[in-house]
Amino acid sequence: MEEVKTVQNKKVILKKYVDGIPTEADMGVKLGETIELKAPKGSSCFLVKNLYLSCDPYMRGRMRDFHGSYLPPFVLGQRLEGFGLGRVIDSDDVNYKPGDIVSGIIGWEEYSLLRSVDHLQLRKIQLDDDIPLSYHLGLLGMPGFTAYAGFYEICCPKKGDTVFVSAASGAVGQLVGQLAKLQGCYVVGSAGSKQKVDLLKHEIGFDDAFNYKEEADFDAALKRYFPEGINIYFDNVGGSMLDAALLNMKVRGRIALCGMVSLQSLSSSSQGINNLYNAIPKRVRLEGFLQSDYLHIFPQFLEHVKRYYKEGKIVYIEDMSEGLELAPAALVGLFSGENIGKQVVRVAKE
Amino acid sequence: MEEVKTVQNKKVILKKYVDGIPTEADMGVKLGETIELKAPKGSSCFLVKNLYLSCDPYMRGRMRDFHGSYLPPFVLGQRLEGFGLGRVIDSDDVNYKPGDIVSGIIGWEEYSLLRSVDHLQLRKIQLDDDIPLSYHLGLLGMPGFTAYAGFYEICCPKKGDTVFVSAASGAVGQLVGQLAKLQGCYVVGSAGSKQKVDLLKHEIGFDDAFNYKEEADFDAALKRYFPEGINIYFDNVGGSMLDAALLNMKVRGRIALCGMVSLQSLSSSSQGINNLYNAIPKRVRLEGFLQSDYLHIFPQFLEHVKRYYKEGKIVYIEDMSEGLELAPAALVGLFSGENIGKQVVRVAKE
Repeated sequence: MEEVKTVQNKKVILKKYVDGIPTEADMGVKLGETIELKAPKGSSCFLVKNLYLSCDPYMRGRMRDFHGSYLPPFVLGQRLEGFGLGRVIDSDDVNYKPGDIVSGIIGWEEYSLLRSVDHLQLRKIQLDDDIPLSYHLGLLGMPGFTAYAGFYEICCPKKGDTVFVSAASGAVGQLVGQLAKLQGCYVVGSAGSKQKVDLLKHEIGFDDAFNYKEEADFDAALKRYFPEGINIYFDNVGGSMLDAALLNMKVRGRIALCGMVSLQSLSSSSQGINNLYNAIPKRVRLEGFLQSDYLHIFPQFLEHVKRYYKEGKIVYIEDMSEGLELAPAALVGLFSGENIGKQVVRVAKE
Repeated sequence: MEEVKTVQNKKVILKKYVDGIPTEADMGVKLGETIELKAPKGSSCFLVKNLYLSCDPYMRGRMRDFHGSYLPPFVLGQRLEGFGLGRVIDSDDVNYKPGDIVSGIIGWEEYSLLRSVDHLQLRKIQLDDDIPLSYHLGLLGMPGFTAYAGFYEICCPKKGDTVFVSAASGAVGQLVGQLAKLQGCYVVGSAGSKQKVDLLKHEIGFDDAFNYKEEADFDAALKRYFPEGINIYFDNVGGSMLDAALLNMKVRGRIALCGMVSLQSLSSSSQGINNLYNAIPKRVRLEGFLQSDYLHIFPQFLEHVKRYYKEGKIVYIEDMSEGLELAPAALVGLFSGENIGKQVVRVAKE
């Protein structure tokens, strides 16, 4: 008779629902149930050992007790889940065999039992010697694809366009800026520290960048960097930066509404957006989007961005936390801008 | 030698620049210069006797001391100008002869000297026995064309779509709703009085309508009329109605930003738009537009809407003030919603 190994599956659980910004106290790390390291026969499941977790701002939405969104909230007392990478250990699915590396929505835990029918974005990863595996959560994963789909499908970029990117050193922003440069655009980014601004200008290749925390007047800052106005604003923050951008759009400018990570976009007592009327005389288009609507171009994205990376035309900055115990802090850090680049948590060595 | 008749040209002047809502005291009606009723030789001008003036909300923008807009401000002490209809009395332009009826930007005065190169939207009117001439300022003029271009070019309507129109009994809104009905949409409008709501439901053919002044909670009102959500919002008011609509859009909904006549959209101390984040999960597109970008489809608009009108498929409600003296009150009335339908001023009998 086969001996099946068992483990206590450590996990990050949601302890209470979040109203504004998540804190570490909202989550807990604990030893979970003892599980067998096998995929039950007849289940069509496969068991993965989790290697990397992705910390993404959208996860805040699932930490709220709000059921009207496009994703359901996490369950109190249960593990969080999010994009991640794992290695298949055992499988009852003919399409997945032990040793395969998969990317998809996995639990914030050491081992996850997955089923391919459960979500669209589960896929096997083709390993490349010259691309770090964890990049499949960033540059080649959901955030990179968000940048790609949003920039090409929503922003309609043309050579010579002026492009503004907020949260520009983040997981999405850094690729938006580089795609815009490859398109022949003039690109300026905003970020929240001198270190990030330096990265944008000297490593990531933005034409210019500024620290929004040092700007008392965002309108004045944008007029300094875009004296002729902005053709494309890739908005990752909402709030008063979006409001200032609305004052600086060129005629027929495009605003991709990608995420609103700023504190202002959370608080119902905030001042709100006051400059939307400007979209009329300037004929500005604002459009919200989700990357998951564009999965038909995911293969093209992978091909293009892998090639750009291998040719040295783009770089990617990643912020790696070590161990499941640090996952809550890593997630919380997104909302105070502590991460430098794409925030990933390494759960286990490859 | 030819005897040339002279008149003192009565006019409506701007007395002071406006900050918020225009009042009658901001304007004055006075006898102007004595002019000869002829078009100077070599001027390429033609002189028209003005018949009708159009009162349009966009004119408020030109009453401000603000030079950054797509139209320059009016000049203090000088006559206002706006869309209007006049009859040619004398002409130094071979394309216009005495008796022709023209539509275009004319002075708020009894007689205007026009030149065809001065603006794009000057054109000769083909008279129809069964269409009132003044309709060329509304149904068949700029407001009607705004409805047509905005609805077909921005809203991408499909049969079965749910459509919400604010300021629905106004010059633009009433045609938007009727075009939407002809397209097979379900259409609800908001307006500011019981009389307007009754008109929308019983004369103009909206499926339903409500008086926004009787609704404490616009979100609740929209949920009542659109339990499944809104595909298209044709926004004529901005402010808190736009904010409520953002909470009620269906996935891939479209919002045409046409005008923001509400008081809220004027005041910098107002609360602003707080629900724009909703455009992300719902993938909503908001787009500002100006009718003047779509003049290439004006002939098609005229043909279609004239035909619909002659076939009895659409109606048009007009509010006529008599005499230049009443023009300031008519313009001011737009901003308190006193007009029922398209506001026109008759300057002289046809």
